[in-house]
Amino acid sequence: MPQKVRIALDAMGGDVGASVVIHGAAISLSRHPDAEFLLFGDSAQIEAQLAQHPALKAASRVIHTDVTVSNDDKPSQAVRRGRKRSSMWLAIEAVKKGEAGVAISAGNTGALVAMSRLCLRRLPGIDRPALAAVWPTMRGRSVVLDLGATIGGDAHHLVALAVMGSAMASVRFGLERPTVGLLNIGVEEMKGHEEIREAAALLRAMNLPQLDYTGFVEGDGIHKGAADVIVTEGFSGNIALKATEGTARQFAQALRGALTSSWRSRIGYLFARNALGVLRDTMDPGKSNGSVLLGLNGIVVKSHGGTDAEGFANAVHVGYELVRYDLLIKINQMLNRDGGALFPAPAAQEAVS
Amino acid sequence: MPQKVRIALDAMGGDVGASVVIHGAAISLSRHPDAEFLLFGDSAQIEAQLAQHPALKAASRVIHTDVTVSNDDKPSQAVRRGRKRSSMWLAIEAVKKGEAGVAISAGNTGALVAMSRLCLRRLPGIDRPALAAVWPTMRGRSVVLDLGATIGGDAHHLVALAVMGSAMASVRFGLERPTVGLLNIGVEEMKGHEEIREAAALLRAMNLPQLDYTGFVEGDGIHKGAADVIVTEGFSGNIALKATEGTARQFAQALRGALTSSWRSRIGYLFARNALGVLRDTMDPGKSNGSVLLGLNGIVVKSHGGTDAEGFANAVHVGYELVRYDLLIKINQMLNRDGGALFPAPAAQEAVS
Repeated sequence: MPQKVRIALDAMGGDVGASVVIHGAAISLSRHPDAEFLLFGDSAQIEAQLAQHPALKAASRVIHTDVTVSNDDKPSQAVRRGRKRSSMWLAIEAVKKGEAGVAISAGNTGALVAMSRLCLRRLPGIDRPALAAVWPTMRGRSVVLDLGATIGGDAHHLVALAVMGSAMASVRFGLERPTVGLLNIGVEEMKGHEEIREAAALLRAMNLPQLDYTGFVEGDGIHKGAADVIVTEGFSGNIALKATEGTARQFAQALRGALTSSWRSRIGYLFARNALGVLRDTMDPGKSNGSVLLGLNGIVVKSHGGTDAEGFANAVHVGYELVRYDLLIKINQMLNRDGGALFPAPAAQEAVS
Repeated sequence: MPQKVRIALDAMGGDVGASVVIHGAAISLSRHPDAEFLLFGDSAQIEAQLAQHPALKAASRVIHTDVTVSNDDKPSQAVRRGRKRSSMWLAIEAVKKGEAGVAISAGNTGALVAMSRLCLRRLPGIDRPALAAVWPTMRGRSVVLDLGATIGGDAHHLVALAVMGSAMASVRFGLERPTVGLLNIGVEEMKGHEEIREAAALLRAMNLPQLDYTGFVEGDGIHKGAADVIVTEGFSGNIALKATEGTARQFAQALRGALTSSWRSRIGYLFARNALGVLRDTMDPGKSNGSVLLGLNGIVVKSHGGTDAEGFANAVHVGYELVRYDLLIKINQMLNRDGGALFPAPAAQEAVS
C-alpha cells in the first residue's frame, strides 16, 4: 500500500478562512482517500468546522495557534509577527520538518512567498522563487510564470524562470524539450523592455538542452497556447492572470444573461445545459486554482484568497498530485542540477521586504 | 446641413491592407452617409478595391504613394523611410493641415505613435501620448490607458494618464468627475512598483476637481468596472488588453465546441442562436476596435492590425464620432488647460526610438 499523502493546511488563510479551507479539504479527501491533513490555526474554529465533516476529522490532526497572518500585513510585518507562530508559518515549517509533503495556503501572497523563502530557502542558483500555474489554452495546457511572487527582475531572472517553468512543463506534460516564449507587447525583436530583449538573446545563445526558446509571445499568445511555457516577471504575469479571470467571469455573466433573455433562449438553455456545464468547468478559474511556488527546498501551493470550497479543493488537488507523483522533487532536482550550472553564484542575501 | 466628416485613412495599414481598409470604409459609409474619405496608398490597389464599392468611390479621394510602413519597421526606421512620403504619414499630415478631422491606421503601432508625435506634436504638459480605448465591463464601460503607445514611465506620467483618461471619460460618458483607479497587482497600499505608489500619493494629494482617485485596481477590476478610468503604463496595459482578447476568443471557441458537442446541445443552439449572437457581439474584441491616441494636437485612431473589414469599420466609427461630436477637441482643450497647469514644464525632447 502506498504511503499516505500528508498535506499541511493554513486553515486561517483566505478571505473567508476556516469554513472554506475545511470544507475544501473534505471535498478533496473524498477524491483522495489516501490523504491526511495537518490543520494549523484556531482550534475552536477548526473543530467547529470539522464537526460537520467526520471523515475529514478522522484523517486530520489539528495544531492550534491563535496567530494569523492578515491579508493587509506587509510581508515584513507578517514575518515579524508570524514567524514560528502563525498558521501560515507552521504549515510551511511542517514541510521543512518532513511532517508534510506540501503546504497549502489561501492567505496573503506576499507573506506566503516571504515566509516560504525564509523557512524553506532557495535552491542553489535561484535568486528568487516564482509562482507558476498550469493554464488551459486553445491548444492544450501551458505553464505560466511568474504570476506575482516578486515583481520586476533582470534578464537572468527571466532566464531562471524559463528554466524552472520548462522543468515543470517537462514533468507535468511529459515533454522532452518544452517550447518557451517570453511575454512581450509584440513579437518583433526590438519590442519591449531591455531586460526582455536581453533574456531573449541569452536564451538563444545558451541553446539549452532542456528547453526550446521560440521567441516573444503577446498577451493573447498565452490563450492560443503559443508555447508550452510562458515566461514573464511577476507584475505583468499577475496582470495577465487577473485579466484572464476577469474576462472569463464577464463572459460567463454575459452568457447567463443571453440564455435567460427570451423564452427561445431559455428553451435553448434547457437543451444545451449539460454541454454548457462542461464549458463552465473548462473556463472556471477556480477549476485551475492552485499556483506552485517554484525554486525552494519544498513544495508550497498558493490558493486564491477569494476562492470557494470547490476552488480550494482544486488547490489541494494540485498539492496532492505534486506529492503523489514526486513532481516537485523531480523538478527541484532538475533545477538543482541545471539551475546550479546556469547560475553558479547564488544571490547573497534573502531580501524580505 | 452639418459639415461632412472628413476621415483620412492609411489604406495600406494592417496585416491585410487595402482590401480590409476599403471594405471597412464602405461599411462605415453605409452607416455614416455624411462621411468623406481621403485614401492614402498605392492607387492601383485602392482603385481595384474601390471598383467594388461605387458609393465609397464617389465619397473618396485617392492620394497615391508607393511608400508603405511595414509591420516589421522599427519606429525610427519607419520615420526615416516614411516621413512625408508614406501612406501613414500622409494620413496623419492631412489632420495637421486641417484637410481631415481624424487619421485612422491599422498599421505598425510604434510607427504610428512616433509619426503622430512628430507630425502633430504633443499638447503642452504632456510628455508622451497614450493609447486609450473604451472597454465594455460588467458594470458598463470604462476608459483604459495606456494600451501600449509607450512603455514604462514615472509617477508623473501615470498622473498625466489619469488626467487624459478622465477627460476622455467625462466627455464620452457625460460624467462630471469620473472615478480613476491605478492598475496594480493588489489593492493594498504597499503593493506594486514605486512609481505606482508614488502616483497614488500624488493623485490623493492633488485631489483634482476633474477626477476622483479611488485607489488600486487589480487586473480583473477592469472587467468588474471598478473605476470609470483605469490607468497603467503601456506594457502592462498592452498585456491586459491582449490577455482579455485572448480569453474572449478562447471562451468563444469553447462555447462553439460545447454547442456542437451533442444533438441535444445543437438543438439548444438553434433556440438560443439569436441571443448568442448578441453575446458574441458584446464580447467580440473587434466590436470595440479603435484606440485613440491622446495628448497630441490632432486625432489619430489605431485599429488592430489583424482586424477584418467589420472591425476596421468600427475603428472608423470611433474616429467619426470623435470628429462629429468634437470629442477630442474638447478633451484636448481640457488637457491643454488642466494638463498645462499640472505639468508646466514640457519635456525637452521628442524621443523617437
